[in-house]
Amino acid sequence: MPKDPAPLHLTLPATSANLGPAFDAAALAFSLYLKVSAHPTNAYSIDAEGRDRETCGRLENHLILTTYREVLAAAGQADTPLALKIRNQIPIGKGCGSSAAARLAGIALAVHFGALHWTDRRIIGEASRREHHPDNAAACWVGGLAVARLSAQAEVQVARIRPKGKWPLLVAIPPQSLATEEARRVLPASYSRADAVLNIQNSMLLLAAFIQGRQDLLAAALDDRIHQPYRASLCPLLPALHELAGQPGILGVALSGAGPSVLIFLDSKTPAKKIAARVAAHLDRKQLPAELVLTAIADRGTRRTPQV
Amino acid sequence: MPKDPAPLHLTLPATSANLGPAFDAAALAFSLYLKVSAHPTNAYSIDAEGRDRETCGRLENHLILTTYREVLAAAGQADTPLALKIRNQIPIGKGCGSSAAARLAGIALAVHFGALHWTDRRIIGEASRREHHPDNAAACWVGGLAVARLSAQAEVQVARIRPKGKWPLLVAIPPQSLATEEARRVLPASYSRADAVLNIQNSMLLLAAFIQGRQDLLAAALDDRIHQPYRASLCPLLPALHELAGQPGILGVALSGAGPSVLIFLDSKTPAKKIAARVAAHLDRKQLPAELVLTAIADRGTRRTPQV
Repeated sequence: MPKDPAPLHLTLPATSANLGPAFDAAALAFSLYLKVSAHPTNAYSIDAEGRDRETCGRLENHLILTTYREVLAAAGQADTPLALKIRNQIPIGKGCGSSAAARLAGIALAVHFGALHWTDRRIIGEASRREHHPDNAAACWVGGLAVARLSAQAEVQVARIRPKGKWPLLVAIPPQSLATEEARRVLPASYSRADAVLNIQNSMLLLAAFIQGRQDLLAAALDDRIHQPYRASLCPLLPALHELAGQPGILGVALSGAGPSVLIFLDSKTPAKKIAARVAAHLDRKQLPAELVLTAIADRGTRRTPQV
Repeated sequence: MPKDPAPLHLTLPATSANLGPAFDAAALAFSLYLKVSAHPTNAYSIDAEGRDRETCGRLENHLILTTYREVLAAAGQADTPLALKIRNQIPIGKGCGSSAAARLAGIALAVHFGALHWTDRRIIGEASRREHHPDNAAACWVGGLAVARLSAQAEVQVARIRPKGKWPLLVAIPPQSLATEEARRVLPASYSRADAVLNIQNSMLLLAAFIQGRQDLLAAALDDRIHQPYRASLCPLLPALHELAGQPGILGVALSGAGPSVLIFLDSKTPAKKIAARVAAHLDRKQLPAELVLTAIADRGTRRTPQV
């Protein structure tokens, strides 16, 4: 018998996908984290603290553990029971990449405790297939801004971009969650050529804006015709916050993933707390409750350290 | 009366738009040139040499002169008759940006001889509105790889990208020309969400490939669902050359603009002449006549020098 593998500690960032026009194509990692420590043991246990503690702490129907066991089973490996310690900052079901982080955590645990020797690309591909879209998983694993494609053959291609300059972010998180499936159901089956072309143009301009640090391009480049116009009714924060786009200090606004959270890009020259206070007052007037989190693009993706 | 303005010499590069998925969104400039020297005089005259000499040399219905006079008229300026010397390397009506170069030449002449003091952005915007798409005009004016958007308000946004590393090109130019209008008529009015998303993902990956010098991303990133599948029957070189994509030395293949020319991206490590000979033999076997031009991305856009 080989001796027990070493414990594993994982730190996985939250991610915001779609970024306006880049639907199912790009995401950025931001500085809220899911931290998971795992020790091999005789029976599964979870010690959870932080956001959505109840969901993180239950042993049944737990996305990290389900993924862990499925990946090991598919690889023909028995699963090592684990004692998990979870410290979670990522809101669950709010469009901040919680499921991508949980699935990647499960895969990373399987790769470690099952000694699977998977490449980064294989790990991202496995998470992307389980997510049915590659953007959150890619950004969560590699950090920064990730562009990703999942091909018809289920192969994943990823390009990691390091944005130039500072891109402070404000994430507005409403109390209610929204299932991605529900947010997809409201999308049309087809689009006009003009709408498709607008999203292609803006996705490329958006990428150029981040790469070249061109804040001036951002507002126009965030315009989208593929998903946001259809999701506004499910995500009332979006139209409310769109009203602020272009005001001093606010470069642009985009739905975070499938919503209902909203990502606000801040001008790095205006004090962020001042803008946050202005946004809070605006939402108060609209009677739209939301938690406002000041954050930034996380340059690093998932960190795996073999000891706790 | 002010004294006659100085003569103007213009050098404008050929451009290849669409680049697979980036339909109406991106183009690259390449090293074939339209050169125009203009002297103020008493009556219009043209001395033309090079490709499509007859079209370049006629005084009636001449895209450079028509544009020149229309821009001056719209600006409320009388037109100065010009003696033009034209040396043209850009094939006309073959998807290599000849109309964008001619329109920009006309606008640049109007700006110079009418003393209009237009910004680069205004010049590109004027050409883009006349072209009904901004990509060729942007790349021709700024050089390198250009991403561009023409908004509903007819405002143009442009980002200029300098590709990393060497990207040798082979352009295959068939004898017959194809009107852009005809090539647009075969496109569908709407697209499935899957097709729109594929083009968004690939456009972003394509941009990342050029910016990061990642030849490995190119082949997959050139896949397109918006225009190429519908234009293959009008542009028989495209399906014939697609068969070579992925063979040694050939990174990928894309329709140049609306066609019928085809742009072939070469691996910089294989001798280009050897690949060109292989492509020529392939087209011979298929009985598809084409001129093959070895070229490269032109880092500089349009050059304006006030003396000839």
